Amino acid sequence: MTTPALPLKVGALVFPGFELLDVFGPLELFGLLHERATISLLAVAPGPVPSAQGPSCVAETAFRGDLGLDVLLVPGGRGTRPLVLDEAFLLELGRQCAAARIVASVCTGSALLAKAGVLDGLRATTNKRAYGWATANGPRVRWVAQARWVEDGKVFTSSGVSAGMDMALALIARLMGRESALQIAAGAEYEWHQDAAWDPFAALNGLA
Amino acid sequence: MTTPALPLKVGALVFPGFELLDVFGPLELFGLLHERATISLLAVAPGPVPSAQGPSCVAETAFRGDLGLDVLLVPGGRGTRPLVLDEAFLLELGRQCAAARIVASVCTGSALLAKAGVLDGLRATTNKRAYGWATANGPRVRWVAQARWVEDGKVFTSSGVSAGMDMALALIARLMGRESALQIAAGAEYEWHQDAAWDPFAALNGLA
Repeated sequence: MTTPALPLKVGALVFPGFELLDVFGPLELFGLLHERATISLLAVAPGPVPSAQGPSCVAETAFRGDLGLDVLLVPGGRGTRPLVLDEAFLLELGRQCAAARIVASVCTGSALLAKAGVLDGLRATTNKRAYGWATANGPRVRWVAQARWVEDGKVFTSSGVSAGMDMALALIARLMGRESALQIAAGAEYEWHQDAAWDPFAALNGLA
Repeated sequence: MTTPALPLKVGALVFPGFELLDVFGPLELFGLLHERATISLLAVAPGPVPSAQGPSCVAETAFRGDLGLDVLLVPGGRGTRPLVLDEAFLLELGRQCAAARIVASVCTGSALLAKAGVLDGLRATTNKRAYGWATANGPRVRWVAQARWVEDGKVFTSSGVSAGMDMALALIARLMGRESALQIAAGAEYEWHQDAAWDPFAALNGLA
């Protein structure tokens, strides 16, 4: 994958009931790219969007049309439950994933990607506590139970919640080089789990 | 410290230029207490508040008067730079810290606490990359250069950005017991650094 034109255009999808850290963990790290990245929050209905934990963020951009994204981030959270049944949303998600240079999901965000057909035939992972539910949404996906994150072509999927940060650094490493990712981890005083196979939470949930 | 009445009332201060993960890392973990905690965002001027990284959150509560908080979370970010010069803000911060059961800062949030006099005579830590600036705001603070977080009485201070999550789990452990904190870390698939003295970033920045 060639180095993208800068600034990197990062868009994070939000919806009522999104998981806070799924979105803001990765966005913190992309934010540390400073002038090398722009960040926007995307929603079907722009405006305030409440998280699963209560606090709302403000989505300034409608999730439709030509967004020209380098990275489309898709979080999980209990708000994914109605969305896997929302055909109009899934159709748009499929379109936006096709258009984005890279697609990256955190936690049960992979259930949305799976239901939209984005993961068909690909290797992917998801939250280990909601593994049964998430994987049932993707019968044609090659699910990997034990993985911090999985990269297959242009699609990155990560395990639950905090795993999104390790995946985001891997994504930055792929696009900008490992040295950039290491500098950003240090800037956030974050201990990056650099091994995509590191996943003690699979065993903790009876999956390994 | 006795077990607080539940739900635990957690309020996070936000201001223009707050650091995303400083706020939403800890709030993700408090959110995993589910019905055992309520979470609100506080600001001098309620409404949308832009982060240092761009995305805005919505503060629903004014940062004044009797808030009845069990935990007051004070983040860092470049927005702390004008606030250490804002006498009216610092006066209110001092009042709110006196009233809160526990005060917890992340990153350069400790510079705000220091400037408000909250840390006088106490042991505290802060971001390791902005260590010189932050500590200059608190000449009467017993600054600890090498620490993931520091607890002194009712005041918790943490190192930079992601350190707030380790501190939040320590805070939950103190209030709810270690087992609760471990369960929450597992729920977020987060590897908790349980040792408050773990801090490779001090040496990385020439502080150890």
